[in-house]
Amino acid sequence: MAQEAEASVVRHHRPRVVVVGAGFAGLEVVRRLDGADCDVLLLDRSNHHVFQPLLYQVATAALSPADIAAPIRSIVRHQDNVRVLLSEVDGVDLTTRQVRVAGGQIDFDWLVLAAGATHTYFGNDQWASRAPGLKSVDDALEIRRRVLLAFEEAELEDDDVARRSKLTFVVIGGGPTGVEMAGALREIAAETIPADFRRVDTTTARILLLEGGPRLLASMSEEASEGALKALEGMGVEVHLDTLVTAMDETSVWVGDRSVPAANVIWAAGVQASPVVRGAGVPLDRQGRVLVESDCSLPGHPRVFAVGDLASQLDAVTGRPVPGVAQGAIQMGRFVGDIVRGEIERGGEVGIRPSFRYVNKGDMATIGRARAVADVGGRTFGGFFAWILWSLIHVTFLIGFRNKLLVMVNWAWQWVVQARGARLITGSPSPQVKRSAAAGWDDTE
Amino acid sequence: MAQEAEASVVRHHRPRVVVVGAGFAGLEVVRRLDGADCDVLLLDRSNHHVFQPLLYQVATAALSPADIAAPIRSIVRHQDNVRVLLSEVDGVDLTTRQVRVAGGQIDFDWLVLAAGATHTYFGNDQWASRAPGLKSVDDALEIRRRVLLAFEEAELEDDDVARRSKLTFVVIGGGPTGVEMAGALREIAAETIPADFRRVDTTTARILLLEGGPRLLASMSEEASEGALKALEGMGVEVHLDTLVTAMDETSVWVGDRSVPAANVIWAAGVQASPVVRGAGVPLDRQGRVLVESDCSLPGHPRVFAVGDLASQLDAVTGRPVPGVAQGAIQMGRFVGDIVRGEIERGGEVGIRPSFRYVNKGDMATIGRARAVADVGGRTFGGFFAWILWSLIHVTFLIGFRNKLLVMVNWAWQWVVQARGARLITGSPSPQVKRSAAAGWDDTE
Repeated sequence: MAQEAEASVVRHHRPRVVVVGAGFAGLEVVRRLDGADCDVLLLDRSNHHVFQPLLYQVATAALSPADIAAPIRSIVRHQDNVRVLLSEVDGVDLTTRQVRVAGGQIDFDWLVLAAGATHTYFGNDQWASRAPGLKSVDDALEIRRRVLLAFEEAELEDDDVARRSKLTFVVIGGGPTGVEMAGALREIAAETIPADFRRVDTTTARILLLEGGPRLLASMSEEASEGALKALEGMGVEVHLDTLVTAMDETSVWVGDRSVPAANVIWAAGVQASPVVRGAGVPLDRQGRVLVESDCSLPGHPRVFAVGDLASQLDAVTGRPVPGVAQGAIQMGRFVGDIVRGEIERGGEVGIRPSFRYVNKGDMATIGRARAVADVGGRTFGGFFAWILWSLIHVTFLIGFRNKLLVMVNWAWQWVVQARGARLITGSPSPQVKRSAAAGWDDTE
Repeated sequence: MAQEAEASVVRHHRPRVVVVGAGFAGLEVVRRLDGADCDVLLLDRSNHHVFQPLLYQVATAALSPADIAAPIRSIVRHQDNVRVLLSEVDGVDLTTRQVRVAGGQIDFDWLVLAAGATHTYFGNDQWASRAPGLKSVDDALEIRRRVLLAFEEAELEDDDVARRSKLTFVVIGGGPTGVEMAGALREIAAETIPADFRRVDTTTARILLLEGGPRLLASMSEEASEGALKALEGMGVEVHLDTLVTAMDETSVWVGDRSVPAANVIWAAGVQASPVVRGAGVPLDRQGRVLVESDCSLPGHPRVFAVGDLASQLDAVTGRPVPGVAQGAIQMGRFVGDIVRGEIERGGEVGIRPSFRYVNKGDMATIGRARAVADVGGRTFGGFFAWILWSLIHVTFLIGFRNKLLVMVNWAWQWVVQARGARLITGSPSPQVKRSAAAGWDDTE
């Protein structure tokens, strides 16, 4: 009897692995635990996994959200040991080994934090409504709405200064997202839509790309940076290096005492780790990332890991930081998934672990419709061939055959007719103009 | 000198045709004026034309909005005499011959009103937030969000009564939209997602279809109504005829003194013409539609027309009302476009005009994944063949090759793997549950 009572208190259960975040890293951890003798709980605040490298194509109306996203439940439906919960994570208690969510506490034996990063305005949170960032499908739809509406408003606007402002787009941050957004915006204004407008000449739209550092694509080779700069300038994008935005107001973006009147501002500059581990007593770097051990575990907590954009990790041999890109996240996820699986199979004891090594398979960024720059295998190249390679790689890594197919159909279509298929203004569609030209039949008389 | 001054006051311009609304009817009018010696201004409050018959497939996550919508500017880009303006129309002044928009007044020589219909709650506007209708892309995305979130909340919910309510969907109105929504919802619950959920059995979801009249699909043959009823009941949809909803509260839908607790309500019942002509002194019917002349013109205003869902028109020979469906709108648009074009070519004089005749090419509605009912050429049939016909016709009438292709790819995919590709919860994704099961590992122990 006594023994029975005790057994019902000390519950014997299979090892419980909680994974927070269904991005590249989190999904890879879950995949590695397929068939393992443990229960996996995958938490995400969204019901879908997003292929982030193509999010800018949703923001620029080339693809639909569903083309680059997949329901998390569908992705893991054949893994019987996985449960999915749609929930925000409020925090982590490493002492009681619990994750705090809206509905309560979730016990874990093993925890993998893969909650990713959000954008940060470096203490200027008041810029958020003026300069939306690009991290989620909702972000992308908001940017799409603003971009498309800007041209509609320019068409309606009678006031020259106001029209010029509607046609000015400032992209802040010269990393891959900023470079790709600026190129796509210029392509829209100069190639996709000019024939659709009667009053306004959309080819006169100004696209400014402001980068705080001395070169674009700082994580790539200098040759690639140079190539991207030349390609963007060749398209008509105005690139300003060593240029830090100091202020923003209703009408303008300020760099010191110079300003540019711009109705449209897009934030592609600061990245900050998800706040999920704040307050858990874990050492963080300046960007809020966890300073993990060489095995991606948290110092003093060998069964708790941080991977992907949430982790500040160094390559075990070169000592160089692992960049916050998809392949880094996937590699860390695989590495940690294998460790957890192996130790569960050996009874749950923490064993001797390898150190994480980052294998850079190459970096690339697209510029406009059929150009890219790439650093692969120590070589740098650009142009059409780099773009083909970029396209193939991105389609290959998309989750699900349906998404691969739809993205290819859309790209082929875009390539043939130079159109963008997802030019829908949804949300709040009412144009805001100072003086409307709606009543005028001016240019058709 | 005097003559010159006068010439600058009495401006000689080409005939100005204003078309309000870029739905089926409005676009058809514009198409008929291609190359005509007039200036056309096409006004719409949205930047895209929507293929409304497939909107329920966006609401049920089978298609993306961009698959069934096309930017209005792109559709008419090759018609040099057409200008597009994104604008709400506030009203029409028939005396001064002006259309009122946010930015001012727009003069017209000819006016075609094709602003369509919205849903109406028969005086119960407080039902709107509880029971969203399905007329725009935004409506469809809101319904999609609610439907997908309902299952997520059911998965999290510990309280039996609350969970049962989350799994109850009430569709109000047994016309084509209601029938198609109810069938698709049942298909999602019973076929698409059961394997994706671990705690909740989605096949137990109740779908109720409430119709105020004695039969479903009242505009079709009795045989088709009977076929739809049988097919829906065969799938497990609970159909209630002669059932008028009398009240709604936070938890339940009421029919007299009976009620059903349901978290999800979808409105597919009342339709009302756009309010654009209200206050213009034009005779309207009970649904707010313009009682037009046999040539679709407004009584006493031969150069002003109402077409599509905005017009209450009778067939010139049978005397039967023209139904508010896509083919009625297209036929009226074509009819009026030809009249306007002809009279402009003959110098603008109003001539002797034909009376509108409606040619019913057939009616059809889908029920679930691979069934439909159809009335074509005096015959009624159903099942798989009707569904194939339905699919072919809908793809044929979609605007643009890209949309046709994407819809076919999506349908083929859905047919093969029984998945729905657009299962994204966007907007506000936080689940609302009474008691969360998040903390429990109950069913995996």
